[in-house]
Amino acid sequence: MPLTAHEDCLLVVIDAQPGFYSDDPAALEALARAAWLAQLARELQVPAVATEEEPERNGATGIELAPGTPVLTKPTFGLAGTPEILQAVRDTGRGTAVLVGAETDVCVYQSAVGLLDAGFRVIAAEDAIFSPGEMHARGLDRMRDAGVALTHCKALAYEWVRTVDRLAILPRPAPFRL
Amino acid sequence: MPLTAHEDCLLVVIDAQPGFYSDDPAALEALARAAWLAQLARELQVPAVATEEEPERNGATGIELAPGTPVLTKPTFGLAGTPEILQAVRDTGRGTAVLVGAETDVCVYQSAVGLLDAGFRVIAAEDAIFSPGEMHARGLDRMRDAGVALTHCKALAYEWVRTVDRLAILPRPAPFRL
Amino acid sequence: MPLTAHEDCLLVVIDAQPGFYSDDPAALEALARAAWLAQLARELQVPAVATEEEPERNGATGIELAPGTPVLTKPTFGLAGTPEILQAVRDTGRGTAVLVGAETDVCVYQSAVGLLDAGFRVIAAEDAIFSPGEMHARGLDRMRDAGVALTHCKALAYEWVRTVDRLAILPRPAPFRL
Amino acid sequence: MPLTAHEDCLLVVIDAQPGFYSDDPAALEALARAAWLAQLARELQVPAVATEEEPERNGATGIELAPGTPVLTKPTFGLAGTPEILQAVRDTGRGTAVLVGAETDVCVYQSAVGLLDAGFRVIAAEDAIFSPGEMHARGLDRMRDAGVALTHCKALAYEWVRTVDRLAILPRPAPFRL
Repeated sequence: MPLTAHEDCLLVVIDAQPGFYSDDPAALEALARAAWLAQLARELQVPAVATEEEPERNGATGIELAPGTPVLTKPTFGLAGTPEILQAVRDTGRGTAVLVGAETDVCVYQSAVGLLDAGFRVIAAEDAIFSPGEMHARGLDRMRDAGVALTHCKALAYEWVRTVDRLAILPRPAPFRL
Repeated sequence: MPLTAHEDCLLVVIDAQPGFYSDDPAALEALARAAWLAQLARELQVPAVATEEEPERNGATGIELAPGTPVLTKPTFGLAGTPEILQAVRDTGRGTAVLVGAETDVCVYQSAVGLLDAGFRVIAAEDAIFSPGEMHARGLDRMRDAGVALTHCKALAYEWVRTVDRLAILPRPAPFRL
Repeated sequence: MPLTAHEDCLLVVIDAQPGFYSDDPAALEALARAAWLAQLARELQVPAVATEEEPERNGATGIELAPGTPVLTKPTFGLAGTPEILQAVRDTGRGTAVLVGAETDVCVYQSAVGLLDAGFRVIAAEDAIFSPGEMHARGLDRMRDAGVALTHCKALAYEWVRTVDRLAILPRPAPFRL
Repeated sequence: MPLTAHEDCLLVVIDAQPGFYSDDPAALEALARAAWLAQLARELQVPAVATEEEPERNGATGIELAPGTPVLTKPTFGLAGTPEILQAVRDTGRGTAVLVGAETDVCVYQSAVGLLDAGFRVIAAEDAIFSPGEMHARGLDRMRDAGVALTHCKALAYEWVRTVDRLAILPRPAPFRL
């Protein structure tokens, strides 16, 4: 399996809404990292698709996305259960879905499994997804066991950038030591 | 591997008897979660089979089950070693066995391995099973290495429910944050 | 993979010598568990083979073994590098080697890999083997990654015994809660 | 998979430069272990290849290597992205690349994946590589999931040495208990 190329990736932002992020420092840290990765995605023209669960109740996506990014309401926990969202993912033409958002063990997990079944390579950025308390680690285990590749924002960023002379692409400041 | 569908599941309640649950808060927490999952199973018409080890010594199953649920004495640590219990499991017509109860590294583990050998997909709800002290984590490792899929009650519940409009099915209050 | 049957097992006691066990409580606990498992093996007529590294320097095996058990000096870290020890293992006619002793990441690890290469199913009893400090956990990881099945004394004991009516076979007291 | 033979190994020293090692005790410990393993490699005539990232900024390799060891500037995070470095690795004629250096989740990880893709067996010495804070453990997980074999200096050293009568080859003192 070669290194992950940004040219094959799309970013999937799952339910990054206030209703799923408490004041828990772990939640806010994950959200900051997801926002940082989304910013890098914009720099590299990595397309994005965002989902929202009951936006009238849970609020709007709290991450800045490129203009024109589809933001779709998701009545199923897993995005692949909603045909227009799966179609929006397919419309990007990319083969590797990078997941950020919430919650690790419910909507992120179910979306990851559904995307695997739909034929995508699926990568979850473990420090840019969130579920309260013990449920985050449990969700990571569920995803890894299901065949989802885990990564973290720093490793993925350097994998996307690939060469020393392109380091300036990384957004600064970053929410971790570059 | 697709998401777990409640229509294919049966709940296997293994030795959820007072003799295997001390006053250890971890034990009582696991029992509460097993009871919660059993309640959801009843809501979704997921059939159940319960086993008991020496009920005259260890007491009766401490979880409410649907009327008519088979409750069978298990003279072997693994349920598949007792033909009438394996038959009761087969009689449900379901292909995925979800295990809760005690002890993680003995009767649950041996039952899981036996059900895998009998051709079932086997899922252990890691926060609804119990063994004292270090033996719980050891038992989980043994099961995962043997090919048992691990899950936790919250993830499985949302996987069974699948859509936002059916959230009201989840029993409330729950022994964890829904 | 079915449950482990004692009829197919042999116990391999690796360098359970004073020179490899300090006064570290973790070492003494592992030695006590190895001794307990060896006692159960004797009850069940599970044959054993023991190795010793430089017994004139490291002392004699500190675990009671059945009369007639081969105790062989091992000039290689891995037992399979010494033909007469590998032959003694083969002479038991058993297909599953259960390893206890020291050190987890050196002689136990190398012996496990060698026995796998020689065609045995290899099980390491993780709480009956020892290496100082961090090296124990590292060694367990090395073995699991190499294809060695890990178990612990309690789980293996119940797997060997298999039925409730044979529980009296378990030696008492045990160095953990039965 | 047999034990690792030193006759098939080469040591790959990745960016072991002051710019990647802070005063963090974990960094200095990893560097000491890498230096120890490099010393053993010299004793066993295990060839080495070293890479450096921006040496004018990050300084020179801080580990003693055998005279004649290629030390090559690496403009890509993964060494396989730089053809002359990959060629230097191939020129050793060895099939197993043992990695030490920094950083675990960036240059070591990307180099490991690239070497796997190039057909090498890849082993990372987990206690002789470094990345700050949480990034070390994350990087180890990334590598293991990618198919890299993890080991630690002590286990690998005894695997290379193989017999008790060659123990004197191990450099003393060692930065851990031999």
